[in-house]
Amino acid sequence: MQIVIIGSGNVAYHLAKAFVLNNIPLAQIFGRNETELHKISEELNIPYSTEKLEDANLYIICVSDSSVENVSKIITKKDCLVVHTSGSLPKEILVGAYRKSSFYPLQTFSKSKELDYEKIPFFIETENEEDKAILFDIASKISNNVMESTHEKRKYIHLTAVFACNFVNHLFSRAKEISDSQEIPFDYFLPLIDETVQKIHEIEPKSAQTGPAVRNDARILQLHEQLLKDESLEIYKTMNHSIKKMYEL
Amino acid sequence: MQIVIIGSGNVAYHLAKAFVLNNIPLAQIFGRNETELHKISEELNIPYSTEKLEDANLYIICVSDSSVENVSKIITKKDCLVVHTSGSLPKEILVGAYRKSSFYPLQTFSKSKELDYEKIPFFIETENEEDKAILFDIASKISNNVMESTHEKRKYIHLTAVFACNFVNHLFSRAKEISDSQEIPFDYFLPLIDETVQKIHEIEPKSAQTGPAVRNDARILQLHEQLLKDESLEIYKTMNHSIKKMYEL
Repeated sequence: MQIVIIGSGNVAYHLAKAFVLNNIPLAQIFGRNETELHKISEELNIPYSTEKLEDANLYIICVSDSSVENVSKIITKKDCLVVHTSGSLPKEILVGAYRKSSFYPLQTFSKSKELDYEKIPFFIETENEEDKAILFDIASKISNNVMESTHEKRKYIHLTAVFACNFVNHLFSRAKEISDSQEIPFDYFLPLIDETVQKIHEIEPKSAQTGPAVRNDARILQLHEQLLKDESLEIYKTMNHSIKKMYEL
Repeated sequence: MQIVIIGSGNVAYHLAKAFVLNNIPLAQIFGRNETELHKISEELNIPYSTEKLEDANLYIICVSDSSVENVSKIITKKDCLVVHTSGSLPKEILVGAYRKSSFYPLQTFSKSKELDYEKIPFFIETENEEDKAILFDIASKISNNVMESTHEKRKYIHLTAVFACNFVNHLFSRAKEISDSQEIPFDYFLPLIDETVQKIHEIEPKSAQTGPAVRNDARILQLHEQLLKDESLEIYKTMNHSIKKMYEL
């Protein structure tokens, strides 16, 4: 099986690394960004190109959602399987006469952060049983958690992930902005943050809620609003409103 | 040293437990809620009362911020130290002729979740060096991380904690609401959530940001908005607006 990864960003890098670590050979990593491709190629010992796409049975497109459609057009081969790794796009976004599938790893990827690939849930959608078998076989070499998912369900998986990961990380950024402004080391908050997450492994997040909003403590809420401005104030008001609504306060 | 804890909620329970586990004797746990006091008393083997406050050198008030002032009035003794455990209130909220201090544990407390007390940062503010020595001595038996903090700084520590913990937990609640609506098990998201937090132990949250907003992917943002309503839609818009502002998109 000849496999090519297209892209040189966070997902491309980590998938390529997961493949290499699990002895799944990659024929090429293809993309536009020569600097990044060169780095990945050096680290993982995979051929790369910015010009000539290698012939393959499976192309894995790992580019941003807004580029998937255009990038898919460069694959002119017919007898092959092409997958994208987007949480929100349908497999039909892929434009070509090849077989189309979705191959979605539910994780947050940054090049500078190592990952435990075997815990990453993979969600797969194919046109037929043969392609399903191919992709399950590959994903199962990387991860213990491979599942089928329709596009409809996958959209909601991605949306949930945006709340549970992307927005959570942004709250950490805004939190750090507040602590930095008072020269309070952000490290102080790491035990609290760790515990916030450990808690929801054991109890429902709705039962784990603490803080001034769920206590409906108007005095503290007012005090905090006076300390905030701009986007952080907006977040503060929106989140507290939502907490009060959820607990009918 | 005679020590009394006042309150029967999450903070009262966990502080009492941390004291007992570290062989700091408690003379009494005092409060209004007999059911909860009885449970704590049974588990930790501490005398309790709802009526007669035991004579002590140190009273630790662990009640909600809005009740601290009123509760502090029941302590009529003069030659004693009274502390509250609030992140946002000044020590002067305590009404009495006794010495006043703040004793703030930076953690999220739920009775049903066990805690590693030695990692909890304690922030202490006192009227004099003697009281500082008393409270540092006690807190250091529980935790490796005991510091002084002015009220001014403590307010910002609490505010940062609201973003980094209370709001993060609420995002988990809203995320679970979305996945529940599609019968997607919330367990799928735990590796992603764990990784989101592990990441910020190694890299700045601002550098760790991923997702459609920071990629400025209008198509996905629009798609997601169509899947959401009410408070979750408001959160979605507010968070994305804030992300775009932070990255100047």
